[in-house]
Amino acid sequence: MRASRWTRDAAPVAQALLEDGGESTRDRILRVAAEKFAQKGYHATGVAELGDAAGIKRGALYYHIGSKEDLLYQLSRRHVEEALTRGRAVTADTTGAVDKFRLLVREHLRTLAARRDEVIVVMHEMYALTGRRAKELNKLRSEYEQLFAAVLREGVDEGVFTSAERIEVLGVLSMLNYTYVWLDPNGPISVDEIAERLTDLILHGVRVPSGAASARRAVPRRRRLAT
Amino acid sequence: MRASRWTRDAAPVAQALLEDGGESTRDRILRVAAEKFAQKGYHATGVAELGDAAGIKRGALYYHIGSKEDLLYQLSRRHVEEALTRGRAVTADTTGAVDKFRLLVREHLRTLAARRDEVIVVMHEMYALTGRRAKELNKLRSEYEQLFAAVLREGVDEGVFTSAERIEVLGVLSMLNYTYVWLDPNGPISVDEIAERLTDLILHGVRVPSGAASARRAVPRRRRLAT
Repeated sequence: MRASRWTRDAAPVAQALLEDGGESTRDRILRVAAEKFAQKGYHATGVAELGDAAGIKRGALYYHIGSKEDLLYQLSRRHVEEALTRGRAVTADTTGAVDKFRLLVREHLRTLAARRDEVIVVMHEMYALTGRRAKELNKLRSEYEQLFAAVLREGVDEGVFTSAERIEVLGVLSMLNYTYVWLDPNGPISVDEIAERLTDLILHGVRVPSGAASARRAVPRRRRLAT
Repeated sequence: MRASRWTRDAAPVAQALLEDGGESTRDRILRVAAEKFAQKGYHATGVAELGDAAGIKRGALYYHIGSKEDLLYQLSRRHVEEALTRGRAVTADTTGAVDKFRLLVREHLRTLAARRDEVIVVMHEMYALTGRRAKELNKLRSEYEQLFAAVLREGVDEGVFTSAERIEVLGVLSMLNYTYVWLDPNGPISVDEIAERLTDLILHGVRVPSGAASARRAVPRRRRLAT
């Protein structure tokens, strides 16, 4: 099963909330749906199965969610909205595009590490959304892209970044998004350290700056430039 | 349906081969399976449905493929093996890590653009493989990673790349792999041009080199350095 790769640090917390009566029925349904969709895919998960897993009858389930597609939409939307809110919050009190960029990358990876099921569902299943729901989710994802684009543009205006075209924004977000495949909060390198290293990679690239190439021995193998 | 995003340039060619009797039954089954798994997911695709789509009876289908998981394994394996072969071929006759790297990136994106169904299946469904099959596929994917790692290491030895640690290799491959979400061979920018731009991004980063930052107006907004 796909989800066996992930540790589920969030599960005991969610369970505790549930026992305290702190988790609403809607939240419980969304959590269970994220888990099931991530494990076996949206198309292969039945509504009855979701009801069983959430401990709720089919009729009541439909009362809370409307339809399976609506459930996919609700949980995808909530995930992207939270990523947007967190991204906006970390950049709000910071000045300087380089620092903002570093914080955005770190927050992005922290979100990916903490919300594994939701990330898998959005990445793999968002194409199952249709009509207005597909449009709304794309709008939110585009807003998230704009968050990164704005910081890159700010850096160009400050004279610290070379380019802020869409291809660079897509390249950066692609690198960050795909980390969901290998990012391991319990691995030998912490999520924040991985964020630092990837930020350095995006900022400086792998190429020795021209002019420095002849000074071969002077170039450290692992560059950790302060920015 | 997920696959509606993709143009299927390969389909008419495959159809022509079939009409010529040039496509073996096994190849036809693999092609149809890639299409169905990409559209609705591995778990939601039934064996009977695959037989119908390939125009082959269930018994004959099992004769050719063994099991549904074996089918997933065969098509994933074929895809990664071909990417490996193509990657090795383009770097074989080239000297210099920078040129090798540029060719590797271009070949990677060309493969992603040409083999959309297979790419979606490997990205989304490889976690459904178990035991020996999961191990074998991971081994192949690791060989592909090593292809990139070797070129980065070569660049460090030549004094043109700053680092070739695993985090950089993973960062680079993450950026390239995730392009499957937005790469459009019929879009305004060609696949080869996208490969060029992403190569530049990985080589040079977005940061204006230190020392140049003060010469703000001298820095072009879109940098296309010859390497």
